[in-house]
Amino acid sequence: MTEHLNIEQMAQKLASADHYLIVCHKNPDGDTIGCAGALYHALTALGKTAAVICADPIPARYAYTGIKLYDGSYQPETVVSVDIASLQLFGERNDVPQLTRHVDLCIDHHAGNGGFADFTLLDASAAAAAEVMTDLIEALGVQLTPQMADCLYTGLSTDTGCFKFPSTTARTHAVAARLIEAGADVQRLNKLLFETRSPQRMEIERMALNSLEYHFDGRCAVICLDRDQIADSGVEPADLEDLTGLPLTIAGVQVGLTLRQQPGGSCRISVRTVAGMDACAIARRLGGGGHNRAAGCELEGNLDNAKAAILAEVEAELTAMDEAAAAAAEQEEA
Amino acid sequence: MTEHLNIEQMAQKLASADHYLIVCHKNPDGDTIGCAGALYHALTALGKTAAVICADPIPARYAYTGIKLYDGSYQPETVVSVDIASLQLFGERNDVPQLTRHVDLCIDHHAGNGGFADFTLLDASAAAAAEVMTDLIEALGVQLTPQMADCLYTGLSTDTGCFKFPSTTARTHAVAARLIEAGADVQRLNKLLFETRSPQRMEIERMALNSLEYHFDGRCAVICLDRDQIADSGVEPADLEDLTGLPLTIAGVQVGLTLRQQPGGSCRISVRTVAGMDACAIARRLGGGGHNRAAGCELEGNLDNAKAAILAEVEAELTAMDEAAAAAAEQEEA
Repeated sequence: MTEHLNIEQMAQKLASADHYLIVCHKNPDGDTIGCAGALYHALTALGKTAAVICADPIPARYAYTGIKLYDGSYQPETVVSVDIASLQLFGERNDVPQLTRHVDLCIDHHAGNGGFADFTLLDASAAAAAEVMTDLIEALGVQLTPQMADCLYTGLSTDTGCFKFPSTTARTHAVAARLIEAGADVQRLNKLLFETRSPQRMEIERMALNSLEYHFDGRCAVICLDRDQIADSGVEPADLEDLTGLPLTIAGVQVGLTLRQQPGGSCRISVRTVAGMDACAIARRLGGGGHNRAAGCELEGNLDNAKAAILAEVEAELTAMDEAAAAAAEQEEA
Repeated sequence: MTEHLNIEQMAQKLASADHYLIVCHKNPDGDTIGCAGALYHALTALGKTAAVICADPIPARYAYTGIKLYDGSYQPETVVSVDIASLQLFGERNDVPQLTRHVDLCIDHHAGNGGFADFTLLDASAAAAAEVMTDLIEALGVQLTPQMADCLYTGLSTDTGCFKFPSTTARTHAVAARLIEAGADVQRLNKLLFETRSPQRMEIERMALNSLEYHFDGRCAVICLDRDQIADSGVEPADLEDLTGLPLTIAGVQVGLTLRQQPGGSCRISVRTVAGMDACAIARRLGGGGHNRAAGCELEGNLDNAKAAILAEVEAELTAMDEAAAAAAEQEEA
């Protein structure tokens, strides 16, 4: 059982030790990296020893965060995880399992946090862990430097799709305002984080658009990529994952499908839906699962067969939706 | 000569009359429409008569702003322009020239505002006119309603590319926070304004990506669209304009070029550059002009000839840039 702390209590805990190891989650994103960077700089500003560990490499684009990776040169006394919801997300590489056998402190914003640390600061209303971290650093009595502000802005903006996602609140914007006042170089960061795509990403997007098909009067859009196209494009997995959002951005589309042939030949299908349309129900009928508006499944057989199978389920769901709407309208009239 | 007013003075002016005509600029965007909508709702909340006029139709996607267009049913006593920098931007249609022969009040954020109104509230540090309008409505003593907040958020977010453009400041985010607190439905608005693209836009983007070429070791990216492609895609002019930003979003690209064949056969070239690279210098050598990082020119002849001509100028500029950098490095060593 973890003990839940508020901002001030967690700040007191952080002030009370000297040698820290900060843990990012595997496949690190802007929020876990930004929080680790800001906390690293804040702890060293207080004269403490700190370094960061992550089971996967920190992507080169985040070099400006100035994170120091743990090199074994001191004995960590306190392990603190940032933006990590469960032990499974710690990962297996870079001595993470050995060094994080015991987790002292956890700073997070995921509602489903597993409570794996001795003490947890959890604010599930925060759009990013960086929102919590900003308050925490101020509670530590550390003046936000431009570099800390860059780190925190990275977490805040990447976890909200640059203030576009539904998780964005008034507080998210208020924190952004404080970070800009503290010197965050938002012009450079926005260009780097949101307006830079690799040539490989452009190439896979080209292929995806060439495969784009509309079905059921434009209510369903489908993109299809075979394994050779994916390999030839040289695209990173994260960019490929990102593409699954594309079909649903088209006006009028209620179900967006992305089919990707896997190296072994099976076909991975991502289902994205608008509000009121159950993506998980569609995926579940083909043995998959997921969330209400983002789900997936994996089918054996070639891309054409997989497409036919998923389109049949989408049609059934659209018909059910229309019938329910018609029944509701009839009831209202009666 | 216009007289410049501050927020409180402009609020007093607005409080002192009863029958308003609010003017949007031609080809209206989210900021002029959002400001007009918010001001319309605020003035009617104060019991005044108001309506909006625009030389071009208000796009259907902005219907939620609840703007009432002027229908001739009352005699306007005070004409107030929102987000308009000069008289040229008033446009010629919908009786705009007759009805706006005299402009009483101007509320704007463009540094180059022409001073065409009797009284002007100008804040060139604002990222959007909606930033100024939010303060103005509060100074009027009107409580922001959710619909006014929707209108103002529309202006704020569209003029900053959803808080991505360099014009975004701490104040921009602070205003966004206030609007969300006042009830702006940012989830719906963000989806509508930033995550919805027309099938026509997807089609022209597909064509653009199929034409994508890299030159000079990936430092220059070019997209090319002929007049048939543009016509066949059915794309709106605004979406086509938006595409000109695409080449420069590619990692490593310093000059992004977009060539569009015009209906008459000439070729319009848009030049976009990274900081430190002069887009206007490139365009000027071919008879064009523009800003430091966004410029353009128009050439006679076919697309291939136009591409060869502009690429020669880009190469010259890249070479000059490299030589200047080398000379600076040499000087430093000496």
